[in-house]
Amino acid sequence: MPEFFTVATPEQVFKALSGFRRLAVETVALDDALHRFCGTDITSPEDLPPLPRSTMDGYAVRAADTFGASDSLPALLDLAGAVAMGRVPEISVGPNQAAAIPTGGFLPRGADAVVMVEYSGPAGEGSVEIFRPVTTGENVLGKAEDAARGDVVIPAGKRLLPQDIGLLAGLGITEVSVYRRPRAAVISTGDEIVPVTDTPSPGRIRDINSHSIAALVRAAGGEVEMFDPVPDDPVLLRAALEKALASADVVVLSGGSSVGERDHMLNVVTSLSGAVVHAHGIAISPGKPTLIAAVGGKPVFGLPGHPVSALVVAQVFLTPFLGHLQGEELKRTPAGARVRAALASSIHSAQGREDYVRVKLEERQGLPTARPVFGKSGMLSTLVKADGFIVLPIHAEGLSAGETVEVILF
Amino acid sequence: MPEFFTVATPEQVFKALSGFRRLAVETVALDDALHRFCGTDITSPEDLPPLPRSTMDGYAVRAADTFGASDSLPALLDLAGAVAMGRVPEISVGPNQAAAIPTGGFLPRGADAVVMVEYSGPAGEGSVEIFRPVTTGENVLGKAEDAARGDVVIPAGKRLLPQDIGLLAGLGITEVSVYRRPRAAVISTGDEIVPVTDTPSPGRIRDINSHSIAALVRAAGGEVEMFDPVPDDPVLLRAALEKALASADVVVLSGGSSVGERDHMLNVVTSLSGAVVHAHGIAISPGKPTLIAAVGGKPVFGLPGHPVSALVVAQVFLTPFLGHLQGEELKRTPAGARVRAALASSIHSAQGREDYVRVKLEERQGLPTARPVFGKSGMLSTLVKADGFIVLPIHAEGLSAGETVEVILF
Repeated sequence: MPEFFTVATPEQVFKALSGFRRLAVETVALDDALHRFCGTDITSPEDLPPLPRSTMDGYAVRAADTFGASDSLPALLDLAGAVAMGRVPEISVGPNQAAAIPTGGFLPRGADAVVMVEYSGPAGEGSVEIFRPVTTGENVLGKAEDAARGDVVIPAGKRLLPQDIGLLAGLGITEVSVYRRPRAAVISTGDEIVPVTDTPSPGRIRDINSHSIAALVRAAGGEVEMFDPVPDDPVLLRAALEKALASADVVVLSGGSSVGERDHMLNVVTSLSGAVVHAHGIAISPGKPTLIAAVGGKPVFGLPGHPVSALVVAQVFLTPFLGHLQGEELKRTPAGARVRAALASSIHSAQGREDYVRVKLEERQGLPTARPVFGKSGMLSTLVKADGFIVLPIHAEGLSAGETVEVILF
Repeated sequence: MPEFFTVATPEQVFKALSGFRRLAVETVALDDALHRFCGTDITSPEDLPPLPRSTMDGYAVRAADTFGASDSLPALLDLAGAVAMGRVPEISVGPNQAAAIPTGGFLPRGADAVVMVEYSGPAGEGSVEIFRPVTTGENVLGKAEDAARGDVVIPAGKRLLPQDIGLLAGLGITEVSVYRRPRAAVISTGDEIVPVTDTPSPGRIRDINSHSIAALVRAAGGEVEMFDPVPDDPVLLRAALEKALASADVVVLSGGSSVGERDHMLNVVTSLSGAVVHAHGIAISPGKPTLIAAVGGKPVFGLPGHPVSALVVAQVFLTPFLGHLQGEELKRTPAGARVRAALASSIHSAQGREDYVRVKLEERQGLPTARPVFGKSGMLSTLVKADGFIVLPIHAEGLSAGETVEVILF
């Protein structure tokens, strides 16, 4: 029987993937930076806050004046005035004085703490009673305490979240350097594949992989260049591949990376100048017939034709790789959120390959349980019904019912 | 001291939120449907596959002819031909016959199983040896096994993932009915707030919340209508609110929902015709000074002015609510992926409120550990440094170091 050219372990594939150069950085408006990966360390251009601010509604005081204050023996302070929002207060707080202050108000000179309004009470005209002591700095956000000028506030490679956007807004940073979005050419191959808008003639099927893989690329922050399905013809395949390599950052083919007669993908890829094959075959299931190559330094993924295998391989290898291209640390473990759950039934596994088992999450006696979703490898419905998958390591023989597993959520 | 109008528990707030009507559905192209919520049950218009297909490269056979086959005593079958991709095979497989078949090829008449190529060998001109028995249906995806005509393949309310897009493509469904994206008007209020593009004069600060909350709305699938900051002036606030209610599906204010003099939000909201206050104050920390109301049936969130409190409240209540508007089941527990981890240090909590404690995830001896990130409530940098937060229930007194906690990831 024909053999795969270079069967690689997942570790070897990740090592090869980590060698591809990251994309260039570009500048985007702050409000467009959500979920992009920061291209440089961002340092604070100023102190935040610029002056001490109150974190509570209450009274700005000198902490020493509240020493020993209690419900039965409150500290009686003279009101020096009230701090208004939006201005640096002109009043100052002297010994045995207090100034009303709203949350966010800047501390008046002389004050070094704030007593919460809950622990104060009126004490006649121009006075206030304080029922609890405060320490210096209490309920005060000190100058530069949130960010000091020159501090790295967001490190390069961080995926920008709403709080990061907020901090940058607070510092007046309205443009952010982020890694460019990877542009992926997505190409289904196979004589039997027709575009989704066509009615397939008998014996043909609609193109599934272009659409599912395109969605996965978009979910990983990439942009997609969609190609029409390419028949199993080396000339047409080569033409599509050259076109894709000319415009895209990464080429994602599916179908034709197996070892059958019609699988021209390896030959076509290696016929191009500057081609390097990193893996022809990966020791995984599903997904063994996967090609990982480079042409002129550009990454080429040849995914299996099976829609389920193609998506699983894409989630395990392509999603983290698209993160890598965008400056994220390339993690060996599959991307996605994880949940720990008890395995509902035993799973057997072949040694010498890493197995990805689809599972549905259920609650049993209030505890998360992962029930394997069995079904033939070609069944996309098994992936639709599952909530995620678990990874059986390459040397594992299987897992027993009741064992705790980590579910990678879709 | 002034009191909150109607302090509600988180449960009461979720009950009120679940009463708001979902948005209408709209039709989008399949490739634009990623992460949208399905507006109707989608039923399969046809059988997938339309005819039995092979899931392996190998030989289509009659399973009965392989009975007892082994390495020492292989079954010898006559080759009836080869199945080509993209056509319904014209050949048929009779008793003691086999036909070469590629993965995905349609089964020829007469065949009921496929022997993997690995378990076959050449046996002279026109024959093949089979070394293992197969059972009926083995390595075959039966007609309609993935989806049968009339089956509900995607239920209403499901968030569409790449595999769902793939299945719909396979069924020739090129347009999908999804819930409309919620349009959120995002308005910061406060005399001290200046637009992010301005240089704040002494005593003022830049608008953080518009940008962080807008990002959170986008992350939850919503669209944003940004407003300039509104000063603490009831007339201006009312004008902004009326404008927002006229165009948006949900209004998200921040600042001014506390109980200080300058907090006009409650008065302005209740002065509008058809206003209902669901909560003025929520028993949570941070985030107590939150207003949840409706005006003419449209939801109005009044978030705290503190950037940290505003974001935490938005993540706990607004994100799931935006999901609800888009057809998702409204879950009581905060949105986001969860990770279980051991608590690195003890946390104290006040009874009678639900506490959200920011944590950083670390590995200690190979196990995930959640280290509380302490810092003053106004410090956005604590949120930037944290990976997520944990929830201390309303009646909890605290948690001890080493306890297992569930971290809600940002």
